[in-house]
Amino acid sequence: MTEQVRIEPVIDYLTGLQDRICQGIAGADGSGEFKEDSWTREEGGGGRSRVLTEGAVFEQAGINFSHVTGASLPPSATAHRPELAGRRFQATGVSLVIHPRNPYVPTSHANVRFFIAEKEGAEPIWWFGGGFDLTPYYGEDEDCVHWHRVAKAACEPFGPEVYPRYKQWCDEYFFLRHRNEPRGVGGLFFDDLNEWGFEKSFAFMRSVGDHYLDAYLPIVARRKDTPYGERERDFQLYRRGRYVEFNLVYDRGTLFGLQSGGRTESILMSLPPLVRWRYNWQPEPGTPEARLYEHFLKPREWVE
Amino acid sequence: MTEQVRIEPVIDYLTGLQDRICQGIAGADGSGEFKEDSWTREEGGGGRSRVLTEGAVFEQAGINFSHVTGASLPPSATAHRPELAGRRFQATGVSLVIHPRNPYVPTSHANVRFFIAEKEGAEPIWWFGGGFDLTPYYGEDEDCVHWHRVAKAACEPFGPEVYPRYKQWCDEYFFLRHRNEPRGVGGLFFDDLNEWGFEKSFAFMRSVGDHYLDAYLPIVARRKDTPYGERERDFQLYRRGRYVEFNLVYDRGTLFGLQSGGRTESILMSLPPLVRWRYNWQPEPGTPEARLYEHFLKPREWVE
Repeated sequence: MTEQVRIEPVIDYLTGLQDRICQGIAGADGSGEFKEDSWTREEGGGGRSRVLTEGAVFEQAGINFSHVTGASLPPSATAHRPELAGRRFQATGVSLVIHPRNPYVPTSHANVRFFIAEKEGAEPIWWFGGGFDLTPYYGEDEDCVHWHRVAKAACEPFGPEVYPRYKQWCDEYFFLRHRNEPRGVGGLFFDDLNEWGFEKSFAFMRSVGDHYLDAYLPIVARRKDTPYGERERDFQLYRRGRYVEFNLVYDRGTLFGLQSGGRTESILMSLPPLVRWRYNWQPEPGTPEARLYEHFLKPREWVE
Repeated sequence: MTEQVRIEPVIDYLTGLQDRICQGIAGADGSGEFKEDSWTREEGGGGRSRVLTEGAVFEQAGINFSHVTGASLPPSATAHRPELAGRRFQATGVSLVIHPRNPYVPTSHANVRFFIAEKEGAEPIWWFGGGFDLTPYYGEDEDCVHWHRVAKAACEPFGPEVYPRYKQWCDEYFFLRHRNEPRGVGGLFFDDLNEWGFEKSFAFMRSVGDHYLDAYLPIVARRKDTPYGERERDFQLYRRGRYVEFNLVYDRGTLFGLQSGGRTESILMSLPPLVRWRYNWQPEPGTPEARLYEHFLKPREWVE
């Protein structure tokens, strides 16, 4: 018997997830509030973008839900997947980036998404994708281990090979080739997931979405009151430049969104509020800044 | 008789141009000095990058010379030009971006370049490219008219159709599709220029290079002492975000450089030293900030 593939329960889950994550982040901030913009897209569908700016803990937190639909995929999307040509499609997801104020709190990103392309008289083509990853400025082993433990726990019910596979994919994906540098300490990244069938794949996407706050909030709580000065703030602004470079040069979601007439302000909500570039800057050997490069920005196994 | 196509005089011109522009910019700054980094590239060639940071007038001025060589072009470069496949190549150019401190002084960019691909027993394939363009924060008609008058003067000896053609190409090239916004007020952009033969094309590239300081320095002199406050600084930082978006998402030179193993720090010297993104920000109607969008960021004829 063929499993029923329905987008409605996915959308229900995602809108609920956006609500829960906004509550969790606003709660951790304690003073900032999310403002919501609902938007529609000419070709079909729309979304709701929620942004908290200038909070006590978070300089900017952007949490998007979107559900976009189209009568047929653009040629760029079907060039490498000819089986998609001529199908109507729907894509839905939650995507978020949290830029904390304190340089001792890492930036985090999470995304869960579902795509389906249909036509009369044929089986739908669909897949899930997503993950979450962490970008420290001043890393702490304890935080990285916690982050990856939760990532592993999210994967555990789905088989022992799942965490290592998606942990590695994350390391490979969030990599700045022009810097020969990972974006951060990774986490999980998965895409094109349908081999498990709809129900199990959907359950996995939910598990990833449900574990994000457990992975992030304890780190925020531990580091948000660490004293810092101009030096640490400077380094944070400098390192945020890498985030911009990654998102604008490599990130598929960002580039696809910008090229396909997505809502620019919602897509670029991922960019940090304030960023510095400094020509040819290198950290002094032996400093905490150098330790980020030497110790944390090396792919490694954070949990057994 | 076939014209002789030689890269040596082009290189001589370009290194001299870099010297002259650095002198002009350092002179206009009055306090900052250029620091030079010479670098080589594993596959062949190298360059010298000169950067002035934290000057009195210029927050950052980066002026690159490069001459890179290769035994054969990468497939990405020959996919659309199969006649280039299997040829050795040389590319040389001067590229610069000037980020002033005062928001009333526009940012400017200039580039002149030459490319040649050769193989035994065949005519070389070569072309010139380049141009210069201006990006104001608070525009002044007088400045835009001056900038375009000098651009037109650079083109005049080469025919009356030259300025309009390359002015339009500039408007089309420096355009952020995801914002539906030009990067600035334009200037000149040309590429693939060989139809005039080597000598005339080279002379045109020189004319563009030689006119850049005449186009820019009078504007700097007029605006550098205009008083400004936090509001203007804020708007400058915000608008600089567009510069980053253009360079990382669209600029061919930047993307080709990053993808082909160019020197990252020299390529990204074009990025502004400090940048702000602000979710969904719009200028209040009737303000000087709104005037930038309404009056200056519309392609228009600045000179007869």
